[in-house]
Amino acid sequence: MELSDIYRPVQEDLTAVQAELKSICQVGNPYLAELLEYSLIGGGKKIRPILALLSAKSYNYNIDTLMPIAMAVELLHLATLMHDDTIDNSAVRWGRPTVNKLWGTEQAVLLGDYLFAQTGELVARTDNLRVIKLLPLTLMIITSGEIAQSQSAFELKQARKNYLHRIASKTAALFVMATESGAILSEAPEEGVEIMREYGHNLGIAFQIVDDILDFIGTEEEMGKPVGSDLSQGTLTLPAMLLLEHYPGKDNPVKQLFHAKDGEKYISQAIEQVRNSPIIEECFEVATDYRNRACRRLEQLPNTEARQSLCELADFIINRRR
Amino acid sequence: MELSDIYRPVQEDLTAVQAELKSICQVGNPYLAELLEYSLIGGGKKIRPILALLSAKSYNYNIDTLMPIAMAVELLHLATLMHDDTIDNSAVRWGRPTVNKLWGTEQAVLLGDYLFAQTGELVARTDNLRVIKLLPLTLMIITSGEIAQSQSAFELKQARKNYLHRIASKTAALFVMATESGAILSEAPEEGVEIMREYGHNLGIAFQIVDDILDFIGTEEEMGKPVGSDLSQGTLTLPAMLLLEHYPGKDNPVKQLFHAKDGEKYISQAIEQVRNSPIIEECFEVATDYRNRACRRLEQLPNTEARQSLCELADFIINRRR
Repeated sequence: MELSDIYRPVQEDLTAVQAELKSICQVGNPYLAELLEYSLIGGGKKIRPILALLSAKSYNYNIDTLMPIAMAVELLHLATLMHDDTIDNSAVRWGRPTVNKLWGTEQAVLLGDYLFAQTGELVARTDNLRVIKLLPLTLMIITSGEIAQSQSAFELKQARKNYLHRIASKTAALFVMATESGAILSEAPEEGVEIMREYGHNLGIAFQIVDDILDFIGTEEEMGKPVGSDLSQGTLTLPAMLLLEHYPGKDNPVKQLFHAKDGEKYISQAIEQVRNSPIIEECFEVATDYRNRACRRLEQLPNTEARQSLCELADFIINRRR
Repeated sequence: MELSDIYRPVQEDLTAVQAELKSICQVGNPYLAELLEYSLIGGGKKIRPILALLSAKSYNYNIDTLMPIAMAVELLHLATLMHDDTIDNSAVRWGRPTVNKLWGTEQAVLLGDYLFAQTGELVARTDNLRVIKLLPLTLMIITSGEIAQSQSAFELKQARKNYLHRIASKTAALFVMATESGAILSEAPEEGVEIMREYGHNLGIAFQIVDDILDFIGTEEEMGKPVGSDLSQGTLTLPAMLLLEHYPGKDNPVKQLFHAKDGEKYISQAIEQVRNSPIIEECFEVATDYRNRACRRLEQLPNTEARQSLCELADFIINRRR
């Protein structure tokens, strides 16, 4: 199933969100406008705006109320990616050069800051204090998670619990912001807000596990960025953790890579070994478990087209190749 | 006059603000706590919290209402400095190593992001939508100004108007956020809010001009950072602009520096030439003009101890050596 089939119930409004995102680029300074255009009119699946809109569909849906938050969750995502790419010195994202690659660290840091501010401006437009308070809390979770993660780079002794906590901060927190805001702004009852929160959390975990799988089994062409980039950053993800568990010997390529903190050959060895093992299947089982939790929680909603879309989105997330 | 004499009307509350700022460091992750402690318990004159408190003193002053904004304006200042130091690769601030120097670019970018989020969380605590909306607008002004400035580095043909616009974004915007928020949160009438806005703007301009003067006439010991750092970054400030106007010959050291984009010797030549000319006096005249505008606007307030403090603060800003 194509993503565009899934978000059919909000298709028109999603197109409007994308058009409004372009309007963010209309600023006085032509240089800033150029940077914004390059950053905003790029790739990405727009999963977070889709989530914000679909989460509201079961309640009192009003696109005018939802527009700023749908834009904001996408911008916050772009801003954090921009700083991540800068920190990691990544050269390619969505198959094209990153802002830091083209304009340098200075511009990428400042543009990310500008996008944080623009996100805040959009969220404030909702005039909803509860939604407004979600933004700083979400950004605190994301950044404190990243600071903690950077501390554990090239660290082999990390428990599975630690991994789940990391990806909850890195990815699920923003998914939750999207789904929870959608529910609040469509005047969902408290239980409905809680359902959408939990759905967003479990979906985010599933999404990131699949992302981490794709970093091992995808191709650079599909993903628009180099394969094995997590390992080269010293980030231990689920496939690498399972490789360490299954092959605890000294010659485990992840072990050797993390000890040497260098060595392209160990990365390709690790990828090869993961691909030729049941590890990927195991990882998909874990991701599917979170997909199931997400969809099960939705069963408490009225059976509408929007509910079906949210569950199909979970399936799409498991089956995607990029 | 000492700064501590000036903020006497809010002295106790300022001590409470500083104590509350320390509480921000109490986070679960010990590594993040360490980074926060280093960043928050540093130098700085706390001008922005002082401004937020003093601006409220003429109206319905309540420290519980003002506390989050007084903390927020200081944190926003620290966050922007942290990213600036990272971008400029500055090694020293307030006489001690910067976060980027001690922990590297990655941590400094992420910690700055965390502080932005913490600022947002504090501002949202005011539950005042008008104040909440000031934060993203202010940050957009600051960052878009910096992006524009980075574009004009080592550019000689910059008008005085351009300079004023630059320092309005860089410094006065946050001063305005402090004074305007203080007025709004103390239920000032609309005219009072406008007075505090204009005061903050003119004070901010005066402050930055003096900062730019000190970069020429201060000592590293007084300022806690190297002398001539603006020139070495390719930033044209008022003293350098006047040096270009007064000595338009080819051998003008600023001209030579900006053409070569390098050359320590031109920096010390420029400093020497500025110091031995009437340029510094001229710059102080411009700064004093903005100080006068700031104080004149205050005359429309009732003649209280707080009003006197605000005007004394303007004098302090002109006469300071760091």
